[in-house]
Amino acid sequence: MSNIPFDKILGEIYTQIKQTPNEGNVASYIPELATIPRDKFGMAVVTNDDEVFFIGDSLEKFSIQSISKVLSLAYANSLIGPELWKRVGIEPSGNPFNSFMQLEYEKGIPRNPFINAGALVVADVLLSHLKNPEEDFIQFIRAISKNNSIDYNLHVAKSEHAVGYRNAALVNILKQYNNLNNDVHRVLEFYFKFCSIEMTCVELAQTFTAFSKRDQAFKYGKVTLTTSQVKRINAIMQTCGFYDEAGNFAYLVGLPGKSGVGGGIAAIQPNHYSVAVWSPPLNKKGNSYLGMKALEWLTDKTELSIF
Amino acid sequence: MSNIPFDKILGEIYTQIKQTPNEGNVASYIPELATIPRDKFGMAVVTNDDEVFFIGDSLEKFSIQSISKVLSLAYANSLIGPELWKRVGIEPSGNPFNSFMQLEYEKGIPRNPFINAGALVVADVLLSHLKNPEEDFIQFIRAISKNNSIDYNLHVAKSEHAVGYRNAALVNILKQYNNLNNDVHRVLEFYFKFCSIEMTCVELAQTFTAFSKRDQAFKYGKVTLTTSQVKRINAIMQTCGFYDEAGNFAYLVGLPGKSGVGGGIAAIQPNHYSVAVWSPPLNKKGNSYLGMKALEWLTDKTELSIF
Amino acid sequence: MSNIPFDKILGEIYTQIKQTPNEGNVASYIPELATIPRDKFGMAVVTNDDEVFFIGDSLEKFSIQSISKVLSLAYANSLIGPELWKRVGIEPSGNPFNSFMQLEYEKGIPRNPFINAGALVVADVLLSHLKNPEEDFIQFIRAISKNNSIDYNLHVAKSEHAVGYRNAALVNILKQYNNLNNDVHRVLEFYFKFCSIEMTCVELAQTFTAFSKRDQAFKYGKVTLTTSQVKRINAIMQTCGFYDEAGNFAYLVGLPGKSGVGGGIAAIQPNHYSVAVWSPPLNKKGNSYLGMKALEWLTDKTELSIF
Amino acid sequence: MSNIPFDKILGEIYTQIKQTPNEGNVASYIPELATIPRDKFGMAVVTNDDEVFFIGDSLEKFSIQSISKVLSLAYANSLIGPELWKRVGIEPSGNPFNSFMQLEYEKGIPRNPFINAGALVVADVLLSHLKNPEEDFIQFIRAISKNNSIDYNLHVAKSEHAVGYRNAALVNILKQYNNLNNDVHRVLEFYFKFCSIEMTCVELAQTFTAFSKRDQAFKYGKVTLTTSQVKRINAIMQTCGFYDEAGNFAYLVGLPGKSGVGGGIAAIQPNHYSVAVWSPPLNKKGNSYLGMKALEWLTDKTELSIF
Repeated sequence: MSNIPFDKILGEIYTQIKQTPNEGNVASYIPELATIPRDKFGMAVVTNDDEVFFIGDSLEKFSIQSISKVLSLAYANSLIGPELWKRVGIEPSGNPFNSFMQLEYEKGIPRNPFINAGALVVADVLLSHLKNPEEDFIQFIRAISKNNSIDYNLHVAKSEHAVGYRNAALVNILKQYNNLNNDVHRVLEFYFKFCSIEMTCVELAQTFTAFSKRDQAFKYGKVTLTTSQVKRINAIMQTCGFYDEAGNFAYLVGLPGKSGVGGGIAAIQPNHYSVAVWSPPLNKKGNSYLGMKALEWLTDKTELSIF
Repeated sequence: MSNIPFDKILGEIYTQIKQTPNEGNVASYIPELATIPRDKFGMAVVTNDDEVFFIGDSLEKFSIQSISKVLSLAYANSLIGPELWKRVGIEPSGNPFNSFMQLEYEKGIPRNPFINAGALVVADVLLSHLKNPEEDFIQFIRAISKNNSIDYNLHVAKSEHAVGYRNAALVNILKQYNNLNNDVHRVLEFYFKFCSIEMTCVELAQTFTAFSKRDQAFKYGKVTLTTSQVKRINAIMQTCGFYDEAGNFAYLVGLPGKSGVGGGIAAIQPNHYSVAVWSPPLNKKGNSYLGMKALEWLTDKTELSIF
Repeated sequence: MSNIPFDKILGEIYTQIKQTPNEGNVASYIPELATIPRDKFGMAVVTNDDEVFFIGDSLEKFSIQSISKVLSLAYANSLIGPELWKRVGIEPSGNPFNSFMQLEYEKGIPRNPFINAGALVVADVLLSHLKNPEEDFIQFIRAISKNNSIDYNLHVAKSEHAVGYRNAALVNILKQYNNLNNDVHRVLEFYFKFCSIEMTCVELAQTFTAFSKRDQAFKYGKVTLTTSQVKRINAIMQTCGFYDEAGNFAYLVGLPGKSGVGGGIAAIQPNHYSVAVWSPPLNKKGNSYLGMKALEWLTDKTELSIF
Repeated sequence: MSNIPFDKILGEIYTQIKQTPNEGNVASYIPELATIPRDKFGMAVVTNDDEVFFIGDSLEKFSIQSISKVLSLAYANSLIGPELWKRVGIEPSGNPFNSFMQLEYEKGIPRNPFINAGALVVADVLLSHLKNPEEDFIQFIRAISKNNSIDYNLHVAKSEHAVGYRNAALVNILKQYNNLNNDVHRVLEFYFKFCSIEMTCVELAQTFTAFSKRDQAFKYGKVTLTTSQVKRINAIMQTCGFYDEAGNFAYLVGLPGKSGVGGGIAAIQPNHYSVAVWSPPLNKKGNSYLGMKALEWLTDKTELSIF
């Protein structure tokens, strides 16, 4: 049992958040996300002893978006191991998260699996190795979270696909450089589906215990990873999880994590706990404005970070 | 007292290293470095209980080069605090370590204090705030390492300065963008001096306990940092310490650290120990080829990394 | 009547060409182009007095590919005049001809109408303003060339479309930046069609007299341009007609012109003549290896260039 | 004798210019240039029959700045011929005129001799091959212009050198890439000197007849070029003479030319005439705002351009 008073800490953070002007803006390019009330705020912690703490709108579903890239990476890593690193790098991008420049400069090898181009390659790997990609992937997530209600939001997926010109460009560049084995449209379709997965903060924190419990067996359905593999996914979260703000997140928060344009962030203190926070308005770098603050205060108050 | 058998582990690593073909190349652009025998290898650990373990050529001085950038950053941070971040970023560069492109694209604000341009800005800060920059800086390092023998190698400094066209270009770009207050030649002179500092592995590991002992007072001579400031320097080491191989180092080793073209690497396990390794031949990214391996084995054998 | 002995000059060039090792390579990414015999060579001159000179395989049809971009530009310019320059620039690209980088850097405004991205915008303009784009465009070309046999090769168009991932990426980037009004697939379809137009050297030279006769009325079917507009299209050919070899072409040949990956080049000496040359193997910059040589010799022998 | 009524045309242009609001800004980074009255305007034409026409402030000296790059190129080309093209390209830059990016991307080979990096390489060539570079160079220019009063303004040269951080960066990058044989400081010193040359519009137009008289002997003192070499310099002026506005100048004016930040532009109609115009305020691309307009009107009124 953790001796950190998470209930007290979450309460304090919640009070502070409610007094903090939100300088972020809700992502507007996806109609379904644009309508989410900007004052939603939820935060949940799940310790490695399976204690659950939460506050605010933590039982409300939201679109996890790019946070799903950690889960698709874990699955692909389980399927093909280090072969994956021949097709996608593990270095921070150092540039805005959708850069065509970088992909061209590096001849179709995305810098890491968390930029869109990298996640498209990961989607391509899953498509090549899974019989029923959509079904298998959601079953994996349900197995981690022990929650069969988790699902895609096909309406959001379709809506994103319809205006997803940047991703359509990226997938064609990958194909041009021979770093895509499946049809460009099929890859996009699958990619947008797993971005559309919806979870509550509690479910998301629960899901990320798979990474905070790095020393325990990572075995969920057909997906298995070694401790060393989990640690390395954590390392990639640290260096690449926040677009071109990864350094800032390491500096301010000091935990491996991953954000999504839906306003969610999942993070972990290895061997201690996982945490999920949700607040839709994003800062200029595309990460949840209040979510970043809440996590900064969390590591301040717990006096615990990986550094 | 640490319960990790560092003496045994260092012994094993040393045996493995001696059996590993060295695919690296010694940096040749500085005549003084080019002549160092390529089979030198030393490794030293200093625990937070001040136990010292070492093996190989660990008592031999080498040029710490860019590792000194962590120390100049600490000093500048102590002097002007967060003001520093208006003149230099904290994001990984995602590009080769001397990139003119990035500096131009970001209008003279270097991405982080560990790329050369960033360290030149840090040098400029020290020059503006110290009465006797060279003297004050070396006294700071002697205070950390409790070792008055540590000094500049003025011959190396002069030799680097003479062929340092890349850094001369960078310092002029910084000046052009009004991100340099002192004379370009003076900044270069000071920069090359602190790159020329020489230490043994034992001295270097000893010096870096200032960062592994993050919860203890960081107070060395006139330089003081809070725990939070030390943690944040550690975070910057993690995301930016290895040029465009920071992601790979996080992935393989999983410790905050910093390398230098002299073949040295210093790293820390926060709250546990600091480590220094030295092997002159560098991999293609400019980091010690065997040094990287030795540290990867260290975190494997200790089953301890920050992730 | 021109007093230049073009018959003699073409004869000399032909002899020289047959003795020159061809260091170029036939474009292989389009199956239909890859099968063209590499030793094909044709060259035709049409003077402003309508005298026609030709040699070699000048009566054989080939795929004019990007040369059609001059014609689509002329049509779009006739339709919307200088409004066009709000959506596409007139500066040389200074980079390889398909650069995603540049398009991103310039926020979806292609540098000029002769790089692929620019020609896609031009295609979008034609689609928005023509009732029957394919029909209207081919009728324009038939009107210039006074030749009703000129047509699309739908087999080539379809074949290029199937593997046209680069162009698919570009068209999506344009759409992303709101510089495309029509459906991405429709724009690509039309673009590949007008790239697939086939002409003989004689037909191509005949067609380009519309630009060498700059002081006469440019009025072909519904398409009309002023002398000033024609001169300006000629200027764009000069500065942008040869991908990132425009400077070299100006230097060696000194005539406004445009090349295509089918191995064709059309060029003009304003107020004197137009010339077309065809030799499938391309140099490293994507321009016909022997075609460049033939035109260099032509301006040497005629002692006439615009400079 | 030219049958174009240049006196009448210059008069009309002058009247129009005086009625045109000047939207340009005088270059402010060089103190000596910043003080020039912004309403100065001069324009001079010298025909190939040596007729001279001029209007406005055409007998007042101004700093020709980058226009001198055409003259240094001619001299270097005379000295080492095509060897020069191994060290500097002939393609338009497609980017702002001082780009570090491009120089790094192309490994120290400047794109053309008219961007600063290219002109620094040309200066290096002259330094290597001339006994008394400053003296020999000014004698060459005096020989062309038949005017012994033409000279450097050493005050301007020194003033530019003192704040020339961009050029200091470029020269160090060139040295780093081994594309500079002389000392960086010496190259800069010479470069700034030939930028500081002062001429009147009449003198400048007179000087550029060396390029408009392409079919006559180019032989001035020790400097000789063939007709073909002169044509090729003219071609480079056309594609590279106006920074990243070369395409626009070709489009609007249609003459080979070169501009300088002092507000001067020299241009030629091959085989007809040369023209110089001077108006200090620059447009956003760094070219004389009214100078561009005056030349556009000149080619409109003469109905003569190379296209």
